[in-house]
Amino acid sequence: MQLRFDGRFGFPGGLVEPGGESLEAGLRRELREELGPAAAALRIGPRNHRGAKAWPGGGAGSGSGGGLVTHFYIRRVELEELVAIERGAPRAPEHGLEVQGLVRVPLWGGLPVFLQHQFAGDAREQLLGTLPLLGIQPPQNEGPQTRGGNCQQGGGE
Amino acid sequence: MQLRFDGRFGFPGGLVEPGGESLEAGLRRELREELGPAAAALRIGPRNHRGAKAWPGGGAGSGSGGGLVTHFYIRRVELEELVAIERGAPRAPEHGLEVQGLVRVPLWGGLPVFLQHQFAGDAREQLLGTLPLLGIQPPQNEGPQTRGGNCQQGGGE
Repeated sequence: MQLRFDGRFGFPGGLVEPGGESLEAGLRRELREELGPAAAALRIGPRNHRGAKAWPGGGAGSGSGGGLVTHFYIRRVELEELVAIERGAPRAPEHGLEVQGLVRVPLWGGLPVFLQHQFAGDAREQLLGTLPLLGIQPPQNEGPQTRGGNCQQGGGE
Repeated sequence: MQLRFDGRFGFPGGLVEPGGESLEAGLRRELREELGPAAAALRIGPRNHRGAKAWPGGGAGSGSGGGLVTHFYIRRVELEELVAIERGAPRAPEHGLEVQGLVRVPLWGGLPVFLQHQFAGDAREQLLGTLPLLGIQPPQNEGPQTRGGNCQQGGGE
């Protein structure tokens, strides 16, 4: 996921250009702008489409006066592909502007805390809905155990 | 700042090795492990030291049974230095282990939301204490305006 200009976590993406740009072409363009060529080169097609959601109000900050429909794609990447994306991301055009950095979602114990961060739109729900599709059990994150305070850790390790 | 294995935001760092490792040598070693050689090559000395804090209990997860003292250093970097660090970070030994990614703290409007994330130790207070030293006015982040909901944004932009 990426940290956005507005301080929230989100997934790469954006609005398709008016005039017939396909969803996948728009996604590829946004990946290139936000993460660079290694991300834009990933093959992503209709089989990676995992759902759509209507936002009748358009969504604040969308720049759209009318309704908005968001589409969510999932693409499994190999570790080498991920590292290539991470290494290219700091030179992407939107790095330091829309995008403040790329992070790996911590899945070994850190997920309940990570889920307490601030997320854009329904990115948190998209993340939680994706984990079972990848064979990862979402944590029980509503209990008192995982809603602990901020200061359980001292300095770094 | 970096996202840590435990899902919290923090600053690079760690424990000095027993047996006489200096604070700055320990910091340099941790920078190399967590962010790679470009970060470890930064000149950081006693003039960059900006404070220390005692944690009598040692801090959970510190691996220390006794007391712990954390030291905080500030180093201003040029944009090219920062990009070099960002590009090298994905190959640092602890990337994908202790460190899940490096982010720029969003300072143009995104800071109040960013400050609502989860932080390790007193990293949030360290960040807030550093901003005035860099000539940045910390936001008023306790008012109702900036404590808004999670869903003010639709999809990406």
